[in-house]
Amino acid sequence: MMDQGLASSAPTPGASFTVAAPPDRRARASSGDLTDLYAPILDDLLSAQRIFDQELISDLPFVNELCATIRTYRGKMLRPALLLLAAKACGGVSKSHHTLAAVIEMVHVATLVHDDVLDEADERRKQPTVGAMAGNTAAVLLGDYLISHAFHLCGILDDHYALRRIGKTTNTVCEGELLQNVQRLRRDLTEKEYFDITQRKTGVLTATACELGAKLAGADDATVEALSDYGLWCGVAFQIVDDVLDIVGDEKQIGKTLGRDFSLGKLTLPTIHCLANAAPETAAALRDALTASDSCGPGRLRDWLAETDSIEYARSAARAYVADAVRQLDILPPSDAKTSLISMTEFVVRRRF
Amino acid sequence: MMDQGLASSAPTPGASFTVAAPPDRRARASSGDLTDLYAPILDDLLSAQRIFDQELISDLPFVNELCATIRTYRGKMLRPALLLLAAKACGGVSKSHHTLAAVIEMVHVATLVHDDVLDEADERRKQPTVGAMAGNTAAVLLGDYLISHAFHLCGILDDHYALRRIGKTTNTVCEGELLQNVQRLRRDLTEKEYFDITQRKTGVLTATACELGAKLAGADDATVEALSDYGLWCGVAFQIVDDVLDIVGDEKQIGKTLGRDFSLGKLTLPTIHCLANAAPETAAALRDALTASDSCGPGRLRDWLAETDSIEYARSAARAYVADAVRQLDILPPSDAKTSLISMTEFVVRRRF
Repeated sequence: MMDQGLASSAPTPGASFTVAAPPDRRARASSGDLTDLYAPILDDLLSAQRIFDQELISDLPFVNELCATIRTYRGKMLRPALLLLAAKACGGVSKSHHTLAAVIEMVHVATLVHDDVLDEADERRKQPTVGAMAGNTAAVLLGDYLISHAFHLCGILDDHYALRRIGKTTNTVCEGELLQNVQRLRRDLTEKEYFDITQRKTGVLTATACELGAKLAGADDATVEALSDYGLWCGVAFQIVDDVLDIVGDEKQIGKTLGRDFSLGKLTLPTIHCLANAAPETAAALRDALTASDSCGPGRLRDWLAETDSIEYARSAARAYVADAVRQLDILPPSDAKTSLISMTEFVVRRRF
Repeated sequence: MMDQGLASSAPTPGASFTVAAPPDRRARASSGDLTDLYAPILDDLLSAQRIFDQELISDLPFVNELCATIRTYRGKMLRPALLLLAAKACGGVSKSHHTLAAVIEMVHVATLVHDDVLDEADERRKQPTVGAMAGNTAAVLLGDYLISHAFHLCGILDDHYALRRIGKTTNTVCEGELLQNVQRLRRDLTEKEYFDITQRKTGVLTATACELGAKLAGADDATVEALSDYGLWCGVAFQIVDDVLDIVGDEKQIGKTLGRDFSLGKLTLPTIHCLANAAPETAAALRDALTASDSCGPGRLRDWLAETDSIEYARSAARAYVADAVRQLDILPPSDAKTSLISMTEFVVRRRF
C-alpha cells in the first residue's frame, strides 16, 4: 500500500495527513473523489490527524518508531471524516470534534492492529517463525497502547456524554469481534447472524462517529438519531463491500492479501448466500473447501459464487443499506457537508480499495 | 489455583468475592493474614467486586462464559484493596472508590490476560496447536473487552481527575510492557533498566490506586503524593518478589508454571545480579542457558544464583523498597486502615504466592 499525500492539495502545507491510495490511474481517480468529498472538512481532518500524532508521542524512542509503523494502517480516514462532516452538516466543527475524530480513528486503528495479530496467528499455523512471533507480541502491545491512548485523549474532553458513548461503543465492537471469532468455524451461519456481527464490529463505530459529530454540534435529538442511523447503515454497507473486495478485489489496489476471510474459515455475505442457494454439489464443494481452507484457489471460489450471482447479491445489499442511510439525511438542511455525506455513500459501494 | 472463599467470613453472605489461595496449611495461614489485612475495607472490596462482575455482563451468553474464565485471574485483589485502604486511611471510602477499585482491578486483569497471550505465543514455538491458537485469539479479544469495560466504567464516575490519571497510567503500563518486550533478549540489561521497566509496568498502577484512594477521600496534596509513593514502592517490591518466586517459588502455591521469565529470555533482578557478580565461567553458562532457554533446568539456575546469593540480594532490595513505602505513611494519623497498609508491605515481601 502506498501513501499518496492529500496534504499537497490541503491549505496547511507540511501537514502529515495522507490518504493511502494505490498507484494506478483508476485508483488515483478514486482518491481524487475522496479528496473532493473531504473538501468541506479538510482543515479539520488535518487538525484531527495532528492530535492523533501528538497523542502517541512517547519519551521512549522505540515506541515512536513502533507507532510510525501504523501509518500504513491509516487509509481512508473514513470514520473521522464522517464525524467531521456530520458536525459541519449540523452546525459546525469545534475543537472537541477534532479530538473525538482522533479518538475514533485511534480505536479503529487499534482494532486493525489486533485483527492482524489474530489473522497472523492463523497464518502462522502453516509456518511458525520467531520473527513473526516477536512481531505478534509487539502488535498485541501496540494495539493496547492505542486503545489506552484513545481513552486518555477522551479525558481531555470535558464531555461525559461523549466518553460514555465511546466506552459503550468499544464494548460493542469487542463483542462483535468475539462473536465473529466464536462463529468462525460454523458452516450454517445465517445472514441475520452475519448482520448482527457486522453491526457490532463495524456499524456501531461509524454510527457513534456520526452521532457524536451531530450531538456536539448542538443538533436536536431527532437529528442526532438520524445521523447515528446514517452512520450505522454506512458502516454495514462498508463492511459488506470490504467482504466482497476480499474475494473479487485487486490485491495491488487494496494493499493486502485477498481471501483472508475464506482462509480463516469466516463466512461472509457472498459465501452465506451461495451456500444457501447453490446446487447441492456446489454447496458441498464450497463447504469442503471452507473446512480445508487452503485447498481452494480464489478462482474456484469466484466460479462457485458466480453460479448463484452471490457477489452481485452482496453488492445489492450494500446498495440497499446506503439508500437507507441517505434517506436519514432528509432531516438536514442543504449544505456542502450534507452533499459530501450523500456522495460518501456512493464511494462506499463503488470503491475498489 | 484453587479459590478459597473470603466471603464466608464477610458480612455480606453470598457475595462472589474470593481470594485465590492454595490448599496447603501454610498457604491457608497466609490467606488468613490477607483476610485480616483487608478487614477494615472488606465490605467495600465486596462492593467493588460486585461492580466488576456487573460491568462485564453481556447480552451474549458465550461472552459471559468467557468472562467466567477470568475468575482464575482474580487472586489477591491487592490493587483494589490498596485503593480502598488508602481511602479509608485518608478520610473514608465513597461509592466512587468502589467503582475505581473495580476499574483498577479490571485494568490489572486485562494485562494478565494479554501477558498470557504473549507468553503462550512463545511456548507455542515449541508445539503449535490449533486449540492453543483459538484460545490465543479469544484471549486477545477478551483482554480488549476488559480494557474497554474498564474505561466504560470510568465514564460512570463524574471525576475527570480520576479518568485522566487512569488513562495516563494505562499509557505508562503499556510502555512498560513494550519496553520489557523490546529488551527481552538483551543479556546486558542493567538493574537501572530493570527498575525502569518494573516501575512502568507494575509500580504506576499501584501508585495510581493509592493516589486516587487518597485524592477522592479529600486528602491534601502532600498526603496524596505520599500515598502515591507508597503505592509505587509497594508495587516495585511486589514485582521483585514475583520475579523471585518465578525462580524459587512452589508451583502448587503460586498456581502457575515456574521459570516463565527464564524460558522467555527475560532477565530479572536475581539473574541480572548474578551475571554481574558471578565468576566468569558461571556468568557464561548462565548467558548460554538464557540464549538456549529450555536447555537449563530450574535446579541449575538456582545453583548459579546461590553462588552470588542473588535471590537474597533481590529479596533485600524488595525489603528496602517497602521500608521506603512505610516511611511515606508517617503523614497519616493512626487508624486500622493505616495499620493494614503497613502490614501489607510485610505481606508483599513475605508472601509465597
